[in-house]
Amino acid sequence: MRLSDYFLPTLKENPSEAQIVSHRLMLRAGMVRQSSAGIYSWLPMGLRVLRKVEGIVRDEMDAAGCQEILMPAIQPAELWQESGRYEDYGKEMLRITDRHERAMLFGPTHEEVVTDIFRSSVRSYRDLPKNLYQIQWKFRDEVRPRFGVMRGREFFMKDNYSFDLDYAGALRSYNRMFVAYLRTFARLGLTPIPMQADSGAIGGDLSHEFIVLAETGESAVYCDRAWLETDPLELEIDYDADLQPIVDRWTQLYAATDDKHDPATCKVAPDRLFEGRGIEVGHIFYFGTKYSASMGAVVRDENGKDTAVEMGSYGIGVSRLVGAIIEASHDDAGIVWPEAVAPFRVGMINLRSGDEACDRACEALYGALAQADVAVLYDDRDERAGVKFAEMDLIGLPWQIVVGPRGVKTGSVELKERGSGEREELSSEAVLARLT
Amino acid sequence: MRLSDYFLPTLKENPSEAQIVSHRLMLRAGMVRQSSAGIYSWLPMGLRVLRKVEGIVRDEMDAAGCQEILMPAIQPAELWQESGRYEDYGKEMLRITDRHERAMLFGPTHEEVVTDIFRSSVRSYRDLPKNLYQIQWKFRDEVRPRFGVMRGREFFMKDNYSFDLDYAGALRSYNRMFVAYLRTFARLGLTPIPMQADSGAIGGDLSHEFIVLAETGESAVYCDRAWLETDPLELEIDYDADLQPIVDRWTQLYAATDDKHDPATCKVAPDRLFEGRGIEVGHIFYFGTKYSASMGAVVRDENGKDTAVEMGSYGIGVSRLVGAIIEASHDDAGIVWPEAVAPFRVGMINLRSGDEACDRACEALYGALAQADVAVLYDDRDERAGVKFAEMDLIGLPWQIVVGPRGVKTGSVELKERGSGEREELSSEAVLARLT
Repeated sequence: MRLSDYFLPTLKENPSEAQIVSHRLMLRAGMVRQSSAGIYSWLPMGLRVLRKVEGIVRDEMDAAGCQEILMPAIQPAELWQESGRYEDYGKEMLRITDRHERAMLFGPTHEEVVTDIFRSSVRSYRDLPKNLYQIQWKFRDEVRPRFGVMRGREFFMKDNYSFDLDYAGALRSYNRMFVAYLRTFARLGLTPIPMQADSGAIGGDLSHEFIVLAETGESAVYCDRAWLETDPLELEIDYDADLQPIVDRWTQLYAATDDKHDPATCKVAPDRLFEGRGIEVGHIFYFGTKYSASMGAVVRDENGKDTAVEMGSYGIGVSRLVGAIIEASHDDAGIVWPEAVAPFRVGMINLRSGDEACDRACEALYGALAQADVAVLYDDRDERAGVKFAEMDLIGLPWQIVVGPRGVKTGSVELKERGSGEREELSSEAVLARLT
Repeated sequence: MRLSDYFLPTLKENPSEAQIVSHRLMLRAGMVRQSSAGIYSWLPMGLRVLRKVEGIVRDEMDAAGCQEILMPAIQPAELWQESGRYEDYGKEMLRITDRHERAMLFGPTHEEVVTDIFRSSVRSYRDLPKNLYQIQWKFRDEVRPRFGVMRGREFFMKDNYSFDLDYAGALRSYNRMFVAYLRTFARLGLTPIPMQADSGAIGGDLSHEFIVLAETGESAVYCDRAWLETDPLELEIDYDADLQPIVDRWTQLYAATDDKHDPATCKVAPDRLFEGRGIEVGHIFYFGTKYSASMGAVVRDENGKDTAVEMGSYGIGVSRLVGAIIEASHDDAGIVWPEAVAPFRVGMINLRSGDEACDRACEALYGALAQADVAVLYDDRDERAGVKFAEMDLIGLPWQIVVGPRGVKTGSVELKERGSGEREELSSEAVLARLT
């Protein structure tokens, strides 16, 4: 993509409304634009990142045996009256009356809808287990939306729902999600830490929150240093096998947010205790028959008896993750994208657009990288070098190629790694070999 | 995917609420499930098709130089008050009041939001042209939603918006979309016919509707037979070139819906006049400065003068297309998916699940096809052959492989092409060679 064509409205000044770094950088880097309080439009650069995050989340859901569906944003109030949550949910639910005076709502979550689908479709224990997921926009009418996409009103979420015949099955489903979540966040370049959690308004008694480390994170995190030394991607996972030993290995390590951590009782030796900050990006719940019993989602068991299915629900904040990744990976100059979610892998700066030799060298590299399927954003604009350098650092692509008149004479370009800041003078061929 | 695991709640009976064939078949084939009037959940099989259609639409938008963004579903009423459409839009607009008593709405279209993004981002004629698209769920509160996803309330749409400095530029953008639309529908296996259209509530004076042929379509179509003999994919398109000659070649051919067709004045010779039926799936508009003038979307032109930008908007009904494709391609037994949008390319029927030889032959083929990246739905259930045949025809995958005890003995399986019904006895190797 040529920057001269690209719709990338960067901002030079720090927007005054942005209190946290991810909000500031997403606005400055032209990723999102606020439409109304807590509601954003995603511009091309931001949407590319959102889609990459979504892709990795989907990939891990599929690997864990979940099947994708898509439920509507607008739900009928009756379903929530059936489950008993319609009155309880309060003002965060965006309530709507349609032209026929029917009570509707913009879904803040989808337990009721998915339970309705299940009860009208599945009759027999032989059709279990099932685990259905969607990646869908939701709405929670926060009283004070803030922090950009980290606490928006309209937000993008992966939510899934497991259906099992009994507790043992539900626990297997829960464990699969536990492992899939660790893998997902690790693939996004993050360090996830699962925390035993209260189940909150949604109900249930087995529940973990997933927090990713970020120095600028919202919550204080206390945990065993072993967390930082383990790579969830190291293990080869067989989702059909018993995952309990793996889950146990993780959950026996100490981890707590500040509201639960008590230095007086914490058993981790001080030199093994990591204190940091983090951001909640996922939550998993087992809640048994809470919805299936009230809504009549039953299957016939082996003895021909109707049994309410055991359910769990599992959520990942997909749009929130875009902010969380920036909180976890930035410096004073801007964003530092992990390769897995970078909107483009490479940014190429032409230091003298219009100069025949520079243009030629850039076009040749641009063509060769495109040929090799490397996504490149090519700054071909007629702008000062300083502006180009600053913007390229701001948008945080993992690799920068700088093509200038001096290097072109000797057949070399500069390759800079955004994260480390390391620079090398290389021939175009060597750059290609490095990046393809 | 093994059918024993897959969430595919097919229906044996014709649902009484479904008046048209696509609605009936989508319900019966377990593609969608109604959540409330005109609002559907997409189940795994339906979602796979929706994503394929979306992918082709996106691909052609990208090829035509458009850039993808994503605007929110929930919009502020103020923007619509600025453009003057808030009162005009009537009851089809789903109006919402948030917890702070602010007037919001679920976007039925996004001219206002995109104009707002543009005016706050683009300042100079040098940044033009721009053409921004999104693929997003919209809501129109139809008084009588019906025909399944063909006229739903919550529906999935690709909409894009072009911004040019002058009429000549706007016409170039319009022509690009004209060509991209023909290509898109043709790639979906459809026969598109553009019709000169009234611009309707949205305003403007250059406008075409795209209708695809389907015997069960909603509108009568009259056109020159040349339409049926032309393949929009035949031409190599260079979107940077002048497309006017190509557009002229298409638009000079006669085409009209029944409300415009007048046998008395129609100049097409009777033997050259095709009479059929069709479904509207896309619409393109040029509307000049209608929104840019009222909302102040101006750029500085070459002489430093502020100029309201020339705009157009372009829509494709993505969820509607899923229904339209079925209307255009089905038979008495069920859906006949064009290869480009088929949820799986192959359905494999094991006529005797549990029989060791049949299972082994099926698993070998299943593995080999997966290896070759061919998407297969494998009916491994313990069901009667008749049920398996009927369901496989119903869901309409392009190729069926039938593995039975007799064939397995002689080393052969049956390959059936769903569209033509043609069957062949082949070795497994020959089937693999055919499908990979």
